[in-house]
Amino acid sequence: MNTDAQHPFDAAERAAVYRAIALRRDTRHFKPGQVLPEEQLLRLLQALHQAPSVGLMQPWRVIRISDAALRERMAALVEAERQATALALGERGAEFLRLKVEGLRDCAELLALVLPPDDGTVFGRRTLPREMALCSAGCAVQNLWLAARAENLGLGWVSMVEPAPLADLLRLPAGAQPLGLLCLGPVERFYEAPMLEQQGWRQGRPLAELLMDNHWNEG
Amino acid sequence: MNTDAQHPFDAAERAAVYRAIALRRDTRHFKPGQVLPEEQLLRLLQALHQAPSVGLMQPWRVIRISDAALRERMAALVEAERQATALALGERGAEFLRLKVEGLRDCAELLALVLPPDDGTVFGRRTLPREMALCSAGCAVQNLWLAARAENLGLGWVSMVEPAPLADLLRLPAGAQPLGLLCLGPVERFYEAPMLEQQGWRQGRPLAELLMDNHWNEG
Repeated sequence: MNTDAQHPFDAAERAAVYRAIALRRDTRHFKPGQVLPEEQLLRLLQALHQAPSVGLMQPWRVIRISDAALRERMAALVEAERQATALALGERGAEFLRLKVEGLRDCAELLALVLPPDDGTVFGRRTLPREMALCSAGCAVQNLWLAARAENLGLGWVSMVEPAPLADLLRLPAGAQPLGLLCLGPVERFYEAPMLEQQGWRQGRPLAELLMDNHWNEG
Repeated sequence: MNTDAQHPFDAAERAAVYRAIALRRDTRHFKPGQVLPEEQLLRLLQALHQAPSVGLMQPWRVIRISDAALRERMAALVEAERQATALALGERGAEFLRLKVEGLRDCAELLALVLPPDDGTVFGRRTLPREMALCSAGCAVQNLWLAARAENLGLGWVSMVEPAPLADLLRLPAGAQPLGLLCLGPVERFYEAPMLEQQGWRQGRPLAELLMDNHWNEG
């Protein structure tokens, strides 16, 4: 890798970045029984770690779940929340229950994403402290997501989980908050489009509807 | 670009993605007087638009600021917040004021990032609705950031701004919230390391300190 920051990205490098962005998918279907080489996992976590953060606060911690019994308890929590979500969805509940919404048991690696107790960083977050910490956590996961895709691995962000019992399982201190579980690993195949679109759950809106000029003018 | 999702990323593509991740910087120094070709800006915004979002809700809107007078008023808001931040920082206030924290007047394009009024999406956010929307907005900006780097452009996320007057300038409806201003454009040179580290403001913590096994065990 050319680490010279002043050396321009060429067309092939640019295309690779755009390809990873275009083909990255929120993944729920994993190839079971896989193991990631430690050095590959480290590369991926270094990508996460290279993300920007407001005031350089790095408002995320990653807890690697290597204990199979702990993973199983987390899968049970996600299943409970799946049922609660179905109830909350009302008339679309039955349709929702037919979707595969997580791959906790099959993914090679399970990582818990945690927002740590606030460290009091003021830089860039005097006015929106919590919002900016959460946005930074999102940036970090997106780095991981794109690196995983470039490594031909899938990643799924499972936020369908009740945070309090998950915090208990992770033994989080007061002020820390789980932001979901990241399922990572090899897949049989990559989705051609977002799975929620493929399954007819919902269609994304086109870019043009989400862009405005100078002032809010959404219909 | 090979759009076949099943075609594996090769080593060169992988290196390009890692290179963009490694060399992306939060940018405050822009080359003044530059204009981005419309098709380049569109490519960049398409990268943002390809980001994942919880329940496919796309909880972000982008308002392009093409009105020079409006840009100037935003720069004044950021300057006011810079002074307020210096006060809030107390003994490090003077040191802070010597840092360049934004490039609003010099960047080629200025984009306002907005969290729209909540659309009520339940999928994946029954328990942490606001957190997950904000994380999704972070993912979208990270896509833009990496695409910009691959286009040899800088991007700076300026969250140093009071949201209420910014919302007024943008004429946001009730329930929408600005999440900062994105400065985008050509630069004279790219930072070799995060600018806050280069300037001795703060050092990031190494990955090892932010990783844990199975349970929280931070010192």
